[in-house]
Formats: sequence, C-alpha cells, structure tokens
Amino acid sequence: MRALSANNTKQAEAIVQQTIASVPLLRKEWHDRAVQRLNSLTKPLGSLGRLEEIAARVVAIREELRPDCSSKVIFTMAADHGVTDEGVSAYPKAVTRQIVLNFLSGGAAINVLCRHLGIDVQVVDIGVDGDTSELSGLVEKKVAHGTRNMARGPAMNSAEMYRALEVGIELANDAADSRRTLIGTGEMGIGNTTAASAITAVLTGMPAAQVTGPGTGLDDAGVRHKVEVIERALAVNHPDPSDPLQVLQAVGGLEIAGLAGLVLGGAARRIPVVVDGFISTAAAAIACALQPRVRDFLFAAHRSSEPGQEALLKFIGQSPLLDLKMRLGEGTGAALCMSLIESATKLLNEMATFSSAGVSEASA
Amino acid sequence: MRALSANNTKQAEAIVQQTIASVPLLRKEWHDRAVQRLNSLTKPLGSLGRLEEIAARVVAIREELRPDCSSKVIFTMAADHGVTDEGVSAYPKAVTRQIVLNFLSGGAAINVLCRHLGIDVQVVDIGVDGDTSELSGLVEKKVAHGTRNMARGPAMNSAEMYRALEVGIELANDAADSRRTLIGTGEMGIGNTTAASAITAVLTGMPAAQVTGPGTGLDDAGVRHKVEVIERALAVNHPDPSDPLQVLQAVGGLEIAGLAGLVLGGAARRIPVVVDGFISTAAAAIACALQPRVRDFLFAAHRSSEPGQEALLKFIGQSPLLDLKMRLGEGTGAALCMSLIESATKLLNEMATFSSAGVSEASA
Repeated sequence: MRALSANNTKQAEAIVQQTIASVPLLRKEWHDRAVQRLNSLTKPLGSLGRLEEIAARVVAIREELRPDCSSKVIFTMAADHGVTDEGVSAYPKAVTRQIVLNFLSGGAAINVLCRHLGIDVQVVDIGVDGDTSELSGLVEKKVAHGTRNMARGPAMNSAEMYRALEVGIELANDAADSRRTLIGTGEMGIGNTTAASAITAVLTGMPAAQVTGPGTGLDDAGVRHKVEVIERALAVNHPDPSDPLQVLQAVGGLEIAGLAGLVLGGAARRIPVVVDGFISTAAAAIACALQPRVRDFLFAAHRSSEPGQEALLKFIGQSPLLDLKMRLGEGTGAALCMSLIESATKLLNEMATFSSAGVSEASA
Repeated sequence: MRALSANNTKQAEAIVQQTIASVPLLRKEWHDRAVQRLNSLTKPLGSLGRLEEIAARVVAIREELRPDCSSKVIFTMAADHGVTDEGVSAYPKAVTRQIVLNFLSGGAAINVLCRHLGIDVQVVDIGVDGDTSELSGLVEKKVAHGTRNMARGPAMNSAEMYRALEVGIELANDAADSRRTLIGTGEMGIGNTTAASAITAVLTGMPAAQVTGPGTGLDDAGVRHKVEVIERALAVNHPDPSDPLQVLQAVGGLEIAGLAGLVLGGAARRIPVVVDGFISTAAAAIACALQPRVRDFLFAAHRSSEPGQEALLKFIGQSPLLDLKMRLGEGTGAALCMSLIESATKLLNEMATFSSAGVSEASA
C-alpha cells in the first residue's frame, strides 16, 4: 500500500485533472472515412447493422482506418464496502476475498470467458479487506481495506478517492504503453450494487427506490431495506450532483473510483473502453460527469437486469450491445462484447470490396 | 448434378419422412440436471441469465452433462430464384454466383467472422444458375439451375424439393459423423427474401404486406411491387398452410428447402442448430411445421430487420439471442451466436463450484 500522504494526494489530484483535460474530441472526418470504406464492402449498404456503427466509431477513436482490436484486456477491480455492515447483501463480506482467490485460480466466469475469447484478465486489489499480499497473480494496488459505511458518513476520504482514481489511470496508461487496443471494465465487491444505486440516484435525480435492485439476490424485503440504507446515506452525506468527485467520495467505492479512472485514462489514450454492467456503468457515469467527451470512447456491453442501469446508460449516452439478462459483473458482459467489437473491426479490415471481388452493385 | 429420377425421388421422400419421424423428444430430466449443476457454480443463482438457459438446453439436446460445442460448422447454401424475373431485388441475379466466388476466396462477411470465431464454413451450391463445376472449395450439390418464377407457378417440382431437403439431411448426417457439435445455417440467393416472405404469409396467415421488407435495399415502391408479386404467387399456387411441403414447393427456394432439411437432420442427430436471420427462420419454420419437436433443438441467432421474422420466431418458439440490426444473411448472425453458445457451455463445463472454490453461499 502506498502512503496516502498529503503530497501524494496532491500529485494524484493533478494527474486526475490532467487526464480529464486531455480526453480528445472525436473527429467526424474519421467516422465519415470509415463509413465510406464500409459502403464499398461486399454487402448491401448498412446490412451489418450495429457492427458497422461499432467499426466506424473505433476508427474515429483510434484515428486509424484499419484499427486492430485484438489486444484485449479486462481489469477486474475488487474492493470491499463498509455499507455491508447494514446487511445490504445476500452474501457475507468475506466473499469478496474468496472470489478474488477464485479469479486467481481461474475458476470464475470471467476466467472461462476470457480464456475462450482471447482476453487477458487482470485482477486488481484496489480495496479488499484482508491480507492479499501473498497472492500471486494479483495486481496489488490496495488503497484501503474497503470503504467506510456510507450510511454513517463519506465512504472514502479525499486521499483514498484520488489514489483510487489514479490507480485506474495508471492501469490505462500501462495498457496503452503495452499496445492494448481494447479495454474492458470488471469488478467484484460485496455491497457494490448499493454504492452504484446511490450514485445513480444522485446523478440522475431519481428516487433510490427506482434505481435499486436485488443485486446478487435479495428478496423484496431485502431490497426495501437496501433502499432505506441508501436513503440514509444520501441524507447523511448530501452528495451534490454538480460535483461528481464529491458524489464518488461520499457514496462510491474504491473499485468504482478505480474504474472511473480507468475509463478516463482509456479515453485520454484513445483506447475504446467496454463498460460491463450496472456497477461499471455507474463508474463510467462519474467519468462522463467529469468529462462529457468520454462518452464517445465508451461501448456499453450489455443490458443488466439491475433497474438502475437504464438511467445510467442514458447518462453515458450509449445503448447496450447485448441483452442476455446477465447480472454477474466481474466483466463478464464486457468480455462477450469485446469479441463483438473485434468482429466488427475485422469485418471492416478484411472484407473484399465490390470492385476487388468483381461483384455487381445494387441498381439505383 | 444427380438425376432426379422417379426412383431417386422416392428414396429422397423416404429419407425425409424417416428423418422427420426420428427427431427425439427433449427430456426434462437432462435440463434439470444441468440446472442443478449451474446452481452449484461460483455465481449468484441465475446471474448468467440467458447463457444458463442456453447451457441447460444444450445439455438436454446432447444428453451430456458437459457438452462440447467447439466443433462448429456453418452451411451457407446458395441458390437462384426464378422470381427475380419480376424485378423483386435491388441486385441482378448474377450476383448470387459472384458472391459465391467471394465466399470461396474468403472475402465475404461470413468468411471473416468464421475465421475470427473458429467456425468452419461450407459453401453449398444447391441451385445456383450458371456453371460452378470448376470452382474449388464449393460443396457441389446442385439440384437445379435455380427455381422457376413462383408468380407463374410452383417454384419447384416435387423431385427438386425432395432432393433439396435430402441434401440438407445428408449434410447434417455428414456433420454428425464427423463429430460436429454445433451447426449454423446460412444462405445466399438474390430474390430469397421474396420466397421467405411468401412462406411467412402462408404459415402465419398474415397479409403479405405485413411480412415483406426491403431485403437487400428496395425503396418503398420496390417493396410495394414485391408485395404484389408475392400476392400473385399466392393466388397462382394456392399454398396450403396445413401442408408445409406443398408450401415449400410452391413458394420456397432450393436453399430454403436445403436448410429445412439441415434443420431436420441436425435435430434428428441431436445437434443444436443455430438459425441465422429471416430466410433461415423461414426454412426452420417449414421444419417445425413438419415436426414440432424440432423447436427445442433450435437457437434463434438474432433479430433481423426484416419485418416478417418476428412472426416466424413465434412460429418456431424461439426468441433471438442478439439484436444488432443485421440483415445480411450468409450465416453472419449465426456465427456470432455460435460463439455465445460455446461461451455458455464452457461456463457450465469449466467454472468452479462453491464447494471446490471454498466460497461462502448466499444466506437464506
């Protein structure tokens, strides 16, 4: 663990602000060049549907006419949540660490999907409660042993929040430096749908009851209690929707802050970022609130069955590519979607044109 | 080309009837065993959504607790349509053969996707107009040089229809014998959305105008004309919805008959069949009309943007796994969906259980 000294925090804050400022504006001319190429390929105009939209946007993000998306990495960030003291999850807090062990031994859903789809998965400890120092294969970036209980005060202090954002930016920069061309978000943290619902309520102005769901499997009474806890957290912390960092600090999570940093860092380095489910979308929403230009660098992987995601998707300006009623997190939806994005770019790069294949075009 | 002698036709008819009769009934006990296993894996109950449904159904189809879906093949069947004489397509008929050449040289969308996703694509000439005898890599199963113009009489004679069905069954049997574990459907044929819309109108009882769309890119006037041609074909042929083979013969196509045979043959050999877009769904609907048990062996790959597909999906009892606004055919939607199905079965086969991973379960 790095010391959260005043100096380190000042430096982290500067890095966060620089990254926010350096997210580029997507240029329409690159999109238009991609569409021109897509229209020359051996298929009826527009017949590849959303795959064509994807390919055109990747061209504009990368500013390359034949972008490669084959070097794919998912960062699955794990952290604990003090709000589990309020009994908001069907699982005990200890499960966060147990699942991290499962990630490292390759037995979790995200491992299976990443092996199948050729994706590197990096498991990041950004705030797991408990000792993880002896676990091999873990990316050790612990900021704290979980957050504090948001129902009693801010989940993080300012130093923790800035460090967690900085961790995400560092990982995005490492990915860019090692020539990754597609980044996916993933997370694991018992209690983190509570944090994501609280963020959603603040950013969208919707009542907590409308944006809170069963998470890993609460019953109706459990969901009602979770809503009450979120309402208490909002009453105690007064999060201000016009100040996204204050919202993040008050009712966020260390993995959510880390993913918000990853999203900002990915966009700043022109890497498309595939946003997984509800919790990842909450993190992306914080990033978009800090810098609206981020939206154009995001792909929403899938429609989660958590009720709060819909409003967040509008907030980040993306519609999901898959709808498979998944609600597992870990980056599982992102993994499936990354393969679709790779498919879309390969179609752009590898298909023959009407003229090269000697195929007659449509009559006018 | 095999001679369509009376004897050969009699034999083909017998094979078709045997195949229809031999489609097994899916047994619920295998589905239940799969669900039991899925519930023991390290994830909240049901949190993999439709991927769990897929895995459970593949278990029941294969009657294996750890089914393997890695040996994947798509049959892309190509044929011409006499109804193109009526000007129902934005493209000239010669494009069918040109696109077949593009398939064989690897430049079409289906080639790109199959290379990316590890799928073998078999291009089948089941009725292309023109000489294809010297093309290497083509599966030569030509039944006729295209269909006749359905607006003037039946598209096929009985011998042609039975032979085309038999071709599909043969290909399914070859696939089963070479231990393929997942079959996808694909097609190419200028004019074939006209045939598929006509089949849809007959099987569902809906007006032609409601189930006819732009195909590869007709304008509104073109679609109105296509509807008129279909209405003429229905008036001339009097297809009887209670006699699916007569419907197929009257207003179908050679590739549609071949795919109907492939679907029947796949189901009879307990291989899950992934049904691509509108035309493939019309073929699957013919198969389901002949044998309702076929439905449980099908996966609908994606929602096509052709308006007729929705009613056909109800008819085959499947809801599509993807919705990417694609309308290319060739098997492109099936290819993407086959990778999802492979993902689903790998999750079932490879994930750790709560007990093996030492993870605490949810509180009751």
